[in-house]
Amino acid sequence: MTIIAVPFRLRNFTLEVGHRANTKFGTTLITGHPGADESLDDAARSIISQWIGCDAQYVEQLYTLSTARQDKREVAISYIALFRQDGCTGPADDRMHWSRVVDLHIHDHIHHMVFDYASLRLKAKLGYTNIAYHLLPELFTLSELQQTYEHVLGHRVDKRNFRRRMTASRTLDKTAAMRRDGSYRPAALYRFATQDDHAAYLTPSWASASFSQRHDETGADAP
Amino acid sequence: MTIIAVPFRLRNFTLEVGHRANTKFGTTLITGHPGADESLDDAARSIISQWIGCDAQYVEQLYTLSTARQDKREVAISYIALFRQDGCTGPADDRMHWSRVVDLHIHDHIHHMVFDYASLRLKAKLGYTNIAYHLLPELFTLSELQQTYEHVLGHRVDKRNFRRRMTASRTLDKTAAMRRDGSYRPAALYRFATQDDHAAYLTPSWASASFSQRHDETGADAP
Repeated sequence: MTIIAVPFRLRNFTLEVGHRANTKFGTTLITGHPGADESLDDAARSIISQWIGCDAQYVEQLYTLSTARQDKREVAISYIALFRQDGCTGPADDRMHWSRVVDLHIHDHIHHMVFDYASLRLKAKLGYTNIAYHLLPELFTLSELQQTYEHVLGHRVDKRNFRRRMTASRTLDKTAAMRRDGSYRPAALYRFATQDDHAAYLTPSWASASFSQRHDETGADAP
Repeated sequence: MTIIAVPFRLRNFTLEVGHRANTKFGTTLITGHPGADESLDDAARSIISQWIGCDAQYVEQLYTLSTARQDKREVAISYIALFRQDGCTGPADDRMHWSRVVDLHIHDHIHHMVFDYASLRLKAKLGYTNIAYHLLPELFTLSELQQTYEHVLGHRVDKRNFRRRMTASRTLDKTAAMRRDGSYRPAALYRFATQDDHAAYLTPSWASASFSQRHDETGADAP
């Protein structure tokens, strides 16, 4: 039984994925084996933390598949993990790398399937949850939010429509703070209004993955 | 490794769930063990067919959990299965029963968690997919559709809003056929306009579960 994880983070508001390079299967996702006495979600969380060097902000189970490789059957349970830009100083394991999503080329069939599905889930949840909260720093401009959405979705979005939709969605709070970038006029800084729409994520209420300790410690209502 | 399945069907537009009664754990869901050489999705599909006596119209993987019972750890992979009222003549196994959802009382902790999550998924997907297609007969009235939604959601919905929303959603085709029930004036019969919104289901494109052979044989575009 193997856990396969797809870690995502933003760096300079560009989406990156954590992976291993130069394994015997080429570039692969990160993997590990759950201990006999722990829940799968706890095992996933701890395998991810060990590779990345800090706890994920958000973890979600994706799909379980029975794989055959060189006639050996194995069960793989896949997970997505999101990291905040400001929460992690670097990989704990020097076999671990971050690459821009567009630069990642996974040859292994199973890892490729898992990565594709993780991307699909993340894209879809961007549409109906505040999942972007788990990637962004606490304060951000609407341009930075838009850039994040564009990187995850893989296409440009219309600026005016995007701003109208985001400010109408009541998921954002405009703060009194402003940020000046270069010679542009100062941009208002926003934060996510709430982190308690847990039900919208459609994950089981009893799953121990989902929201991290760090998240709970911020005083949010997530169960 | 165990597969746990939650089969749902409509009978007279009332939602029923398939289960076992009087096991050593009381009322439980249906279970089985995947063979060494088959995919988990294929195994789930075949275990469900064996219990119910016909192929499910729709199957989706739910969640994988590592359970501990009497100090024995086991991995359970859970599935939801939907059956069409007109597609199945009865249980293949006489230990298998159908009960109205409101009448089901599952004592076993793990089975209860799985059932709760299956209900949550079904409710949620009713909102953004044509998943109800997999429960309803080919032709139905708007009243029957409303009754189905109310049973799945567990609450009444406003008739006028419901009709407006459903007819505006472009997921339904009004047919020329009418049906007279008792002394009411004849009601128009509808069918689902398309079965090819597979992407909306958010299941992996490579999952072999999802849509059944029966569904493909009707000429739909589902992959």
